[in-house]
Amino acid sequence: MSYHFNNIVLITKKYTAPIVDTLKAVYLHLKCLGVNVLVETETAEYMNDPNIPTIKVSEYKELIDLAIVVGGDGSLLHTARIVANQHIPVVGINRGRLGFLTDVLPDDLEKLTAVLEGHYTVEKRFLLYAQVHQQNQVIGEGDALNDVILLPNDVAHMIEFEIYIDDLCMCSIRSDGMIVATPTGSTAYALSGGGPILHPQLDAIVLVPMFPHSLTYRPVVVDGNSEIRILVAECDHKTPGISCDGQPRIPMGQGDSVKIIKNRNYLKLIHPIGYNYYEALRSKLHWGKKL
Amino acid sequence: MSYHFNNIVLITKKYTAPIVDTLKAVYLHLKCLGVNVLVETETAEYMNDPNIPTIKVSEYKELIDLAIVVGGDGSLLHTARIVANQHIPVVGINRGRLGFLTDVLPDDLEKLTAVLEGHYTVEKRFLLYAQVHQQNQVIGEGDALNDVILLPNDVAHMIEFEIYIDDLCMCSIRSDGMIVATPTGSTAYALSGGGPILHPQLDAIVLVPMFPHSLTYRPVVVDGNSEIRILVAECDHKTPGISCDGQPRIPMGQGDSVKIIKNRNYLKLIHPIGYNYYEALRSKLHWGKKL
Amino acid sequence: MSYHFNNIVLITKKYTAPIVDTLKAVYLHLKCLGVNVLVETETAEYMNDPNIPTIKVSEYKELIDLAIVVGGDGSLLHTARIVANQHIPVVGINRGRLGFLTDVLPDDLEKLTAVLEGHYTVEKRFLLYAQVHQQNQVIGEGDALNDVILLPNDVAHMIEFEIYIDDLCMCSIRSDGMIVATPTGSTAYALSGGGPILHPQLDAIVLVPMFPHSLTYRPVVVDGNSEIRILVAECDHKTPGISCDGQPRIPMGQGDSVKIIKNRNYLKLIHPIGYNYYEALRSKLHWGKKL
Amino acid sequence: MSYHFNNIVLITKKYTAPIVDTLKAVYLHLKCLGVNVLVETETAEYMNDPNIPTIKVSEYKELIDLAIVVGGDGSLLHTARIVANQHIPVVGINRGRLGFLTDVLPDDLEKLTAVLEGHYTVEKRFLLYAQVHQQNQVIGEGDALNDVILLPNDVAHMIEFEIYIDDLCMCSIRSDGMIVATPTGSTAYALSGGGPILHPQLDAIVLVPMFPHSLTYRPVVVDGNSEIRILVAECDHKTPGISCDGQPRIPMGQGDSVKIIKNRNYLKLIHPIGYNYYEALRSKLHWGKKL
Repeated sequence: MSYHFNNIVLITKKYTAPIVDTLKAVYLHLKCLGVNVLVETETAEYMNDPNIPTIKVSEYKELIDLAIVVGGDGSLLHTARIVANQHIPVVGINRGRLGFLTDVLPDDLEKLTAVLEGHYTVEKRFLLYAQVHQQNQVIGEGDALNDVILLPNDVAHMIEFEIYIDDLCMCSIRSDGMIVATPTGSTAYALSGGGPILHPQLDAIVLVPMFPHSLTYRPVVVDGNSEIRILVAECDHKTPGISCDGQPRIPMGQGDSVKIIKNRNYLKLIHPIGYNYYEALRSKLHWGKKL
Repeated sequence: MSYHFNNIVLITKKYTAPIVDTLKAVYLHLKCLGVNVLVETETAEYMNDPNIPTIKVSEYKELIDLAIVVGGDGSLLHTARIVANQHIPVVGINRGRLGFLTDVLPDDLEKLTAVLEGHYTVEKRFLLYAQVHQQNQVIGEGDALNDVILLPNDVAHMIEFEIYIDDLCMCSIRSDGMIVATPTGSTAYALSGGGPILHPQLDAIVLVPMFPHSLTYRPVVVDGNSEIRILVAECDHKTPGISCDGQPRIPMGQGDSVKIIKNRNYLKLIHPIGYNYYEALRSKLHWGKKL
Repeated sequence: MSYHFNNIVLITKKYTAPIVDTLKAVYLHLKCLGVNVLVETETAEYMNDPNIPTIKVSEYKELIDLAIVVGGDGSLLHTARIVANQHIPVVGINRGRLGFLTDVLPDDLEKLTAVLEGHYTVEKRFLLYAQVHQQNQVIGEGDALNDVILLPNDVAHMIEFEIYIDDLCMCSIRSDGMIVATPTGSTAYALSGGGPILHPQLDAIVLVPMFPHSLTYRPVVVDGNSEIRILVAECDHKTPGISCDGQPRIPMGQGDSVKIIKNRNYLKLIHPIGYNYYEALRSKLHWGKKL
Repeated sequence: MSYHFNNIVLITKKYTAPIVDTLKAVYLHLKCLGVNVLVETETAEYMNDPNIPTIKVSEYKELIDLAIVVGGDGSLLHTARIVANQHIPVVGINRGRLGFLTDVLPDDLEKLTAVLEGHYTVEKRFLLYAQVHQQNQVIGEGDALNDVILLPNDVAHMIEFEIYIDDLCMCSIRSDGMIVATPTGSTAYALSGGGPILHPQLDAIVLVPMFPHSLTYRPVVVDGNSEIRILVAECDHKTPGISCDGQPRIPMGQGDSVKIIKNRNYLKLIHPIGYNYYEALRSKLHWGKKL
């Protein structure tokens, strides 16, 4: 029998006993369906079974047509940054706390079967690409499905910087940092910082200041095709930095800048039939349902 | 001599002595340039000069190629709703307090000359169109450049309603009301209510709940082409209503709904050369300038 | 047998079938205990039983030593304003939605027995007293357990006013109004408007601006013994007003002012043993419990 | 001639050219008045004049009756923590950006003369005392005039902790940290984090969550005599810590707790006659003045 997806990689990013249980269950489930299932090298170590065929990240492009992530949104973010550039779609099986992105439940693997049989919707989610410049050199870069954040080198230390949108100066600002988020990231860290919720299909980027020194700064939403540039003006001999989706930061000094634009490649996020963004929003945020 | 605009209407919405002074100065300035300048009937009454040629709103379409508004953003909003549907561009001369929309200063009429000579940029701003339904009948409608607001019949009275985006139920909510704003309106009432700033060229609509009963509601930004529907669920024998740009409200009862979509016609907002949205934002909100 | 409370009035403010059921159950429960139970005149009408002995509000002072309110926080607020000045304690049986104040559940009437037997704690909650002045005359006054609110005569109409704390000018402000709340009211309307939570035993008053025109206004917490005065500066030919706990407003004009101070008399709020404010907060606001 | 203050220490915390200029001007001004003026050892090094008599912090208690701080609020905070416990009053000469605490201007030294002559008001401001516990041992402590902050070991890393007020569990919370601020600190970092403004004479403490994971957390204001305890529940193998007024943090691990109470000793903050808290608030926050 032939499925819509026949070469599948199984991935997690974090070891916990329930994740490993689910990995094993998913692995068996897929084997029974008869598809070709490989496990990402590190993930395979967690599963502790020498018979499981493994695959390295570098081999995905050639061999894989679907990535299945077991874990929370953190695991999915990690995989998204890798597979988006290779055009491999992803589906998430939730073993984390929130799960805005991982919408298959571990005890509902029939939904996974249905996805393989072609019963799914594909949602395109854009990523950001950040490039850090020092004088005229690129000194670092990164991708982010959720957010690119300018951070001080230590908590609660103010930085001073300027923000440019398409080469127009928006403002200078003194704050603990700045969150630049995609619609996907608008329900993550940016939301805790007081940002609005952007519908995932909106072509827009939101800038949320962190603990701004002035009370008049507000989240600003700009077109998704804008080029955002943040220039570090003064940083008190301390080193701020750029973090993409919470990854280790790229350090910056006074006069350095980061350019943030939309990544050309989109993440293809697979949902089982019946997925409804607002339903997810309502259940995570305890919003009222239809009366 | 021929100008880019040769048939001009002069409008205000409100009588104050400084507004009338500026109206007279602008009128003379335009006469000197030799263009055909007419004054809207009510505005002419404020000017109290029987020799001034007047024009009714219903005649704009045929005769006018530029509307000049003297006053604050309120006057411009009023005119915008009228001329947008007739494709007549507008320029504003500021005599109000804020002036996000009216960016020519009254003592800088050379800028107006420059506009007539063709030195200007046109910015398209979209309007919302609201249609109130009772059972299957349309019982009211309106246009708004800033916002469509669902309001209780009295201050601080809670209403219960459901919100649908493109026929999907987003949530039910209990609150004092809901602000549905354009990017233009995002710096007006929606901002006081905690909404984000949307760049005026962003194709998006923001929904800002007013005094929501639950603490988890947040402003939500959706695509500008969404169809928003708000259904009044329960209103405690009191009558909520819909107000477009602060105009008298259209009353609604339990079970009634309002459909809000983008108006097909855009406002053509004329700016003198050198206009910069962020500069306006910085000066109105006391944001920091480029260092 | 003698109880701590022997002369009890039973009150509600609103007719609903479940409230009447609970009123009847409480009435019977108290009769069985052998205490003297009277029903407030209007409440008795809802109960529709001519044999029930009734009592008018004006007779409470002489005859009553405990008021039992059946309903939601609205019913308790209504009674609180009446009985606080007569030093009669109140206990609430919850039939409303939230119930920060009414903490006995209708199916747990043994708690009521326990209260009568002396197993309770008394919590003192202060009320505000508002006095509206025109020139040198008092033109209206009111009490509030939750909040005194300055409101426009219509929704979303800006008012301009000055705030004085102990005769020092705090600021002038342009907004839709101002909420002045007690700690009890800090979890009601003020919270929806972005105010902080004040612990009920804190001797403080919070001022929360409603839709302020400027972005730098913030909720301000002042000492509970402050004299707050709000002076209406300009109101655009429309009439703002003062509302105490949502009651019908006292209209004000330009130049009128309202003085707000703590009421000398406190509400004595009775809680069954085991009451915990933070538990109420956690369950109403879905906060995390002890791990 | 004898003054109200005759033995004065001059202090700054930071070297900048304008600060040193002002230090020298103040030093001369005081010498001319004939009072005994000493300069704190490190401050004297900045002044670079071997003839200036110096004094160590440890000698203040015996010799000093007034501390004069030149700099910004940061310098005053630093001195406040030292002199509050020794009952020495402080006056600040502003050379910083904001200056809520340092209200004498450097070109208005006649105000300083007036203070020495007895024309001043003393304002008592309370400090917090934080004590970090591991099992049953105290592993660190600190004083804060502004705030005690629980911070992650790195920016944007969530911590999980429980908050107790007077031994009652308020809630468990997952966030980037928690700001516990005095009224003095309510206009500093806590304000950037969305906290309310507490009048400086209010006997209260405010708790402001930093980037809380749940949307229902709000700033909470408790009585100034409360004992606040924060227990670190889970911290993902990373080390959070406690920082008092931004000083180097005291590291904490899972199961450790911090107890925060009011310090017994108050800061005596000296203001020249005419000081008005609301005037400071209005000018720093651009609030409207009396009309």
